[in-house]
Amino acid sequence: MIRAAMAESELARGLLAGDRRALARAITLVQDDDPDGRELVREIYSRTGGAAIVGFTGPPGAGKSTLIGALTRRRRAAGREIGVLSIDPSSPFSGGAVLGDRIRLSEHFLDHGVFIRSMATRGALGGLAEAALQSTLLMDAAGCEEIYLETVGVGQAEVGIAGHADSVVLVLVPGSGDSVQALKAGVMEIPDIIVVNKADHPLTDVLVRELRGALSLAPPSAGWNVAIVTTDALSGHGVEQLEAVLQSHRDTLGDAGALERRRRLHLRGEVIALASARMRRALEQRLEGDERFEALIDEVAERRLDPASAAAALSERPDA
Amino acid sequence: MIRAAMAESELARGLLAGDRRALARAITLVQDDDPDGRELVREIYSRTGGAAIVGFTGPPGAGKSTLIGALTRRRRAAGREIGVLSIDPSSPFSGGAVLGDRIRLSEHFLDHGVFIRSMATRGALGGLAEAALQSTLLMDAAGCEEIYLETVGVGQAEVGIAGHADSVVLVLVPGSGDSVQALKAGVMEIPDIIVVNKADHPLTDVLVRELRGALSLAPPSAGWNVAIVTTDALSGHGVEQLEAVLQSHRDTLGDAGALERRRRLHLRGEVIALASARMRRALEQRLEGDERFEALIDEVAERRLDPASAAAALSERPDA
Repeated sequence: MIRAAMAESELARGLLAGDRRALARAITLVQDDDPDGRELVREIYSRTGGAAIVGFTGPPGAGKSTLIGALTRRRRAAGREIGVLSIDPSSPFSGGAVLGDRIRLSEHFLDHGVFIRSMATRGALGGLAEAALQSTLLMDAAGCEEIYLETVGVGQAEVGIAGHADSVVLVLVPGSGDSVQALKAGVMEIPDIIVVNKADHPLTDVLVRELRGALSLAPPSAGWNVAIVTTDALSGHGVEQLEAVLQSHRDTLGDAGALERRRRLHLRGEVIALASARMRRALEQRLEGDERFEALIDEVAERRLDPASAAAALSERPDA
Repeated sequence: MIRAAMAESELARGLLAGDRRALARAITLVQDDDPDGRELVREIYSRTGGAAIVGFTGPPGAGKSTLIGALTRRRRAAGREIGVLSIDPSSPFSGGAVLGDRIRLSEHFLDHGVFIRSMATRGALGGLAEAALQSTLLMDAAGCEEIYLETVGVGQAEVGIAGHADSVVLVLVPGSGDSVQALKAGVMEIPDIIVVNKADHPLTDVLVRELRGALSLAPPSAGWNVAIVTTDALSGHGVEQLEAVLQSHRDTLGDAGALERRRRLHLRGEVIALASARMRRALEQRLEGDERFEALIDEVAERRLDPASAAAALSERPDA
């Protein structure tokens, strides 16, 4: 126990000193749901809050990784230390996403001012959200001044993690009709910034017009109008403008404690979500291989016990 | 108490006799999370399982309601009693969806062989899933032979409810590029049937080709190849073919207990999800207006207590 505690403090010291290997090891602990990882986050938490967190979300294939790579290049030139956390979907049949992202970000691999990490979504989204949140805190404590959080998706759950960033960027491409419809119908939350990537496509103007139409239905937000930026991440076109818009959003957040309020609201939601996910995992672990539970489900399947009563029996008697 | 129990049994009797007003009242009880609603479902649960449940999902604007309307017309002509449950997104700025769906299904309003109900998604998805599941059971017990469950979305959470149907139909339109990418990347689960609606669009063939490409990456499924059907729900084109494909999927499910296995798996997941949602709601209710909780969140916001420790404190001491 004493050795572990010492090793841990050593890891914390290395992390706070900005050691990249310490950061990598710390994130692995957190991803593996190792108690030492949680302890480490607890230890360094008071040293977090300095990083600007930007969430990037959007459908697969929109070019998020390329865009993050291009933005990273500019921000590195401005002397900023960058952390990138990519969250990959748990694909049952495409293992390519992680590798693809890594290739797109590969020019930054040898730069000690950039820390890149991918995380696969396996199992519960709750567990993933927790690991992502904690990894972000570790990057923050390790001195990353800007952290880019990338999640894939066009629904509510997928957007959730990146949606808890200080600034939320939705990346679309011509052909993203479903996302426009989801914004219009209110199925998807309104981001702070929308990037229309692959802007050399002939249908870019149509998409921008559709987006303006969808946004015009949204209730006015205090102090910030959703910005639409067209980019071509491959050539770098528009990335300078995105950089400026992000800064402008950051400035707005600085006014009258808006950033603090937003962060408190997100943290409040995160604590409840983490607690719920923790309870769900505890329940699932308890039921794993539990023959009485399978017998209960047999009763439900045979229409002898209704699902809600079975659920009530499970949730109300945590010892059952 | 005795009066309530009697009234309830009366409601159950009316419901089981196929009385539409009793069914409407029962669903309202369930949607309002009234304990009487749960009791009623418990009472009638042994009389369920007879209905064929078909889930329809897809992005907003794909024409799901129109398609369901057209399919309902055909199935009514074949003498089947139909239930339709539409789940609308909790739109912060578009209140039009419910009304729109109702208009599209309005020709069936006076038909006693069709029962139509919309349900708004407010608050937690867990609570909605429970209300949807119970409403389906009530429709089933009331004699609906086929139940069409409609959910809007292009992500995992949105698809969840319809995904627990016996047959899952994904409805797309030309321009649904995001959904094709989500299928390809494995972000979205593979449905049993894909409908390409608004098939008079010049880009229909392109979408069908893209879908075949995306599906070719999926692992082969035992006994069923995902069917792609092109329809034009407004004119009724292709609806006959959809009807035949649905029957064919139903026949496959009948082989060697496949339907029972699928339903047991779904029910198992539902019971766990319902129990988790129940625990989460209990937690949220407990925290509502709790000053000690807000003080805990202040500590988190001020970086004095890390989110995971705060969550652990909440989940491990349910009396806190």
